[in-house]
Amino acid sequence: MSEGHAHAGGASSLSVNRLAAPVLARLLEDADALGVGVARLDNGVTLVDGGIATRGSVAAGLLIGEICMGGLGEVRLCARTEAQWSGWLEVSSAQPVLACLASQYAGWSLAASKEEAGGRKFFALGSGPARALACREALFAELGYRDHAEAGVLVLEVDRPPPAVVIDKILRDCALPPAALTVVLTPTTSLAGTTQVVARVLEVAMHKAHELGFALADVVDGHASAPLPVPSPDAGVAMGRTNDAILYGGRVHLKVRGGDEAAQALAQRLPSSNSRDYGRSFADIFRDYEYDFYKIDPALFAPAEVWVSNLDSGRSWHAGGVDMALLRSLWLEP
Amino acid sequence: MSEGHAHAGGASSLSVNRLAAPVLARLLEDADALGVGVARLDNGVTLVDGGIATRGSVAAGLLIGEICMGGLGEVRLCARTEAQWSGWLEVSSAQPVLACLASQYAGWSLAASKEEAGGRKFFALGSGPARALACREALFAELGYRDHAEAGVLVLEVDRPPPAVVIDKILRDCALPPAALTVVLTPTTSLAGTTQVVARVLEVAMHKAHELGFALADVVDGHASAPLPVPSPDAGVAMGRTNDAILYGGRVHLKVRGGDEAAQALAQRLPSSNSRDYGRSFADIFRDYEYDFYKIDPALFAPAEVWVSNLDSGRSWHAGGVDMALLRSLWLEP
Amino acid sequence: MSEGHAHAGGASSLSVNRLAAPVLARLLEDADALGVGVARLDNGVTLVDGGIATRGSVAAGLLIGEICMGGLGEVRLCARTEAQWSGWLEVSSAQPVLACLASQYAGWSLAASKEEAGGRKFFALGSGPARALACREALFAELGYRDHAEAGVLVLEVDRPPPAVVIDKILRDCALPPAALTVVLTPTTSLAGTTQVVARVLEVAMHKAHELGFALADVVDGHASAPLPVPSPDAGVAMGRTNDAILYGGRVHLKVRGGDEAAQALAQRLPSSNSRDYGRSFADIFRDYEYDFYKIDPALFAPAEVWVSNLDSGRSWHAGGVDMALLRSLWLEP
Repeated sequence: MSEGHAHAGGASSLSVNRLAAPVLARLLEDADALGVGVARLDNGVTLVDGGIATRGSVAAGLLIGEICMGGLGEVRLCARTEAQWSGWLEVSSAQPVLACLASQYAGWSLAASKEEAGGRKFFALGSGPARALACREALFAELGYRDHAEAGVLVLEVDRPPPAVVIDKILRDCALPPAALTVVLTPTTSLAGTTQVVARVLEVAMHKAHELGFALADVVDGHASAPLPVPSPDAGVAMGRTNDAILYGGRVHLKVRGGDEAAQALAQRLPSSNSRDYGRSFADIFRDYEYDFYKIDPALFAPAEVWVSNLDSGRSWHAGGVDMALLRSLWLEP
Repeated sequence: MSEGHAHAGGASSLSVNRLAAPVLARLLEDADALGVGVARLDNGVTLVDGGIATRGSVAAGLLIGEICMGGLGEVRLCARTEAQWSGWLEVSSAQPVLACLASQYAGWSLAASKEEAGGRKFFALGSGPARALACREALFAELGYRDHAEAGVLVLEVDRPPPAVVIDKILRDCALPPAALTVVLTPTTSLAGTTQVVARVLEVAMHKAHELGFALADVVDGHASAPLPVPSPDAGVAMGRTNDAILYGGRVHLKVRGGDEAAQALAQRLPSSNSRDYGRSFADIFRDYEYDFYKIDPALFAPAEVWVSNLDSGRSWHAGGVDMALLRSLWLEP
Repeated sequence: MSEGHAHAGGASSLSVNRLAAPVLARLLEDADALGVGVARLDNGVTLVDGGIATRGSVAAGLLIGEICMGGLGEVRLCARTEAQWSGWLEVSSAQPVLACLASQYAGWSLAASKEEAGGRKFFALGSGPARALACREALFAELGYRDHAEAGVLVLEVDRPPPAVVIDKILRDCALPPAALTVVLTPTTSLAGTTQVVARVLEVAMHKAHELGFALADVVDGHASAPLPVPSPDAGVAMGRTNDAILYGGRVHLKVRGGDEAAQALAQRLPSSNSRDYGRSFADIFRDYEYDFYKIDPALFAPAEVWVSNLDSGRSWHAGGVDMALLRSLWLEP
């Protein structure tokens, strides 16, 4: 059980862009069946419309979720009922650090001014494998990981195509020729968008573990689940639902190495119930902070219920719990 | 989220026969492992025996279920326990109109007289992709869908091979050469037969939604589940069990567009509990109507529990509920 | 529903080694992502390290489980929560006799003396498809099955590579050239090892059915589930957990043919609760018998809860039940 690689779980030869390529190929090949649109820009970049002018689908969102995880995770819809909610996403990865942090995390800021973006400011947080080609975030130095694939795919949670200036920046930072780049667009208000965001339930746990100072190289395996909400045409409501799905319905089991104290502390501190803001819908919290995202307690962004197992001792800790009654009250008409 | 195609969800370029072909290829290739038989008639038509002279399997039924859905749906066995029953089917589709109504629905009447059928009258309701080549049902005009594939596959819930006259009619109506037609035979009394019928849980909801006058083009995504019963060697009992699995154990979540009133009304009117015949086993109801199928209240043919979400408003309604105690009393010895 | 083949469910032309080959190919191809190591011995034999010097993964264990079942079974992780435990394995097979007994069962004794094995005695029970090439166990005569594939794969639950004398014996008994043999090593103390052992939940039921004298040719289909524990670095604790997962958390549904009396008796006698040793953890039982495995009541090795359905009558029996409170007390810190 011991290996001792310090970075990225000893798997730094893996290419998240290459591993995501077969999943992307399925998304493109089955585009009509999945309700997504595929277009090629004049410069050769491929754009996938996962729900702007197209209707998209949950199935498209599952594939986009797996693309976001760099081909190193599985995302499935489970049509089981629990607490009177009808569908759950299940996510697992044997490489949670690479899949979730080096690839899936929405950490690459991409902005364009009103002038550059045709009259309306553009802002997006890029997620997915191409982040690891650009390595524009401090996180990559910490992970000790950089991808060198000859093609890349980036996912943007936006409601319009990125302006040329943003596309050009992505190409430049990734050092890719246009024909080697695919950008997938998924508005939160779409089926695919909501699905791929809730598929971040394991990533949210990984991100908070990192924030709590847990050694990333000690996380070796993870699986998770969360109820899949229905998108709202109101972007704020849609975003609130995807957050609530994880904060109040997300469950994560991390398998780690190292000391028992660190593992136990992680289990206790990881659940969203540790936050002072826990207990109300994300929409209510956001409104009460006057829509200032940075006033929200960062500790809130976490799954509701966690298991942490230390493979070096064989001990497991369980903490937190889901609040499906709250989710039902938010998601279902009375 | 808006697209406005009137017919078949804007996906009328999809070919249900072509999309089902890879699943059919797996059924043929793994025939021995799946316990199904494959034979070629003298004229070149391929017949798959899913449980007449062969033992078949649940796994064969899952593939046949996906063939029925024209390659536009997923059918899985989930070995989880709920209410002391051991296995559940899960069905999902990003193209529920095409998958369920243009393909899976058993709507094509195929009959042969005693003389034509070698001494015993033959009757079957053809289901699956080849229906969309023949388009012999009024439904296809309404769907605005016709498939033009060069090969086709039809599924018949029968206990003997169809007579030559029926095969010839299928070939003629589908305009296929014999070598391009595959007919899959699944008696309800077989594992594969029971499985592929219960895999119709989403289709049953789509069919009732249509009967209720809901605009089919407004249904954009669906998933469903139902407990998988064990077949009985008695065809009547076997049929009763597959019906009961859906009527008392089926759960369906439809995602639609349009007005809230229509979506809410659909949720309220969809569950089987709206029927005057609800509450007793299908076998009992059928017997009390002296085995006259057409006396049964059509509103009974519906899932037990439903969620309907309107993507245009983001609102969801939940109605009905499963009756696992009834199913246990029907399916398990005391 | 009747076929009447006496041996191996009428499927004796199936090759468990050939059917496992595509799954093995995936394990080798995705080795880095799955955290397993691949090495080629000087003589050309391929060794897969599923958790000795590597960290392995649950995902690797799922593939190894499917390899063990000779490509005739599905093994999946289901990230659902039940009784506050976070993950369940689901196993199914349309060929339970071949998959579980002719392939997965760990029945081939492979030993080497201290001298032969470099200072420490070597002992392993080989499992997986290559057993059916060697046919060194009496069981194969009973099954009437022998595989004739040109390549083979064997799985060993060990914490070190087998000595040359054992490799040579495997090659000789399987009549394989070295380049055609792959040996997969999975310590119980690893993620992959624990996973592939718990994936034996259906096999444990098949083995006990055989011990109870139930006619194997009458078992036609099966599915099962069990909670997936976390491995312990202590081999004894790890082994105890995998046993407890099945004895107290395993659920199996067998579909059989034949008489109702035999089916009902199977249902009643199959669950682990029939054993005089039922009720305490495997580790406690083992210790109380002074670590003499053969003093443990063999009737204990069985799933906790079973359904047996007789396809010849359509009747089903349910017996036993899981004890998740016991498992929680064993697996989770208070």
